[in-house]
Amino acid sequence: MTAHKHEHYLRLALDMARLNLGARHGGPFGAVVVRNGEVIASASNEVLLTNDPTAHAEVVAIRRACEHLGSFQLEGCILYTSCEPCPMCLGAIYWARPDAVVFAATREDAADAGFDDEHIYQQIALAPGQRQIPSVQLLGEEARDVFKDWKNLDDRILY
Amino acid sequence: MTAHKHEHYLRLALDMARLNLGARHGGPFGAVVVRNGEVIASASNEVLLTNDPTAHAEVVAIRRACEHLGSFQLEGCILYTSCEPCPMCLGAIYWARPDAVVFAATREDAADAGFDDEHIYQQIALAPGQRQIPSVQLLGEEARDVFKDWKNLDDRILY
Repeated sequence: MTAHKHEHYLRLALDMARLNLGARHGGPFGAVVVRNGEVIASASNEVLLTNDPTAHAEVVAIRRACEHLGSFQLEGCILYTSCEPCPMCLGAIYWARPDAVVFAATREDAADAGFDDEHIYQQIALAPGQRQIPSVQLLGEEARDVFKDWKNLDDRILY
Repeated sequence: MTAHKHEHYLRLALDMARLNLGARHGGPFGAVVVRNGEVIASASNEVLLTNDPTAHAEVVAIRRACEHLGSFQLEGCILYTSCEPCPMCLGAIYWARPDAVVFAATREDAADAGFDDEHIYQQIALAPGQRQIPSVQLLGEEARDVFKDWKNLDDRILY
């Protein structure tokens, strides 16, 4: 795909970000998912609209694209997003596996605008016991028993 | 809260993980959210049930807890999860801000069971251009203009 085509779709993501300047459904972020030249999903950030802290534009667009395709995988798709994804959205991207990500604003731009993605990147890199949100491990043996029983299933789906 | 109490709630999360051994709605993972001793949300992994790659037990439990509270924040809540959260779920936790996380299986246990969280931790630590899913930056100036207009709003909500 040409850079010009990428810019076309990325501007649609920026339009979705701009929508939130008026609608105030959440932060100024937008995303679209494109497959074979067709926009199959678009979203603005909906955190405030839906009281859902996971409703970042990328996550909502991924959910909608998967619903459209009837699949939990986004092979053959490109995700366009108005801003470099936060760690949550990056994780979602790696579980959904689109072919590529095209973004506009950077992490640094987001930080300048007051969004604290950097803190989350730093926290994720720490061991659980060192994180700001206290994180405690218990019942390891009982948990491993669940995994053992799962591994013994004949028809388990790995994803 | 005593360790005994934590174990009680954590076993509820393990019960939700065990449910998926029979229901096959997704991987063998479960989570509950507790506030003032009351379970306000519980979830199994629902990735296969809903074709939603973001429907990890922690994310679904966070969404349900926020819906229950009518808030996008989980102050005063503890998240109990059958397994150490993946980067997507950790990101969701940092956006939702519960008081603490209690987990049972570790990242290493999840890897032994065939779940590839480690790959995502490694990818997130890389610069966008170095990641396995190609990641391209374009239209930085137009994106920064959206943030500028957002910063000029009188009543913007930072979260």
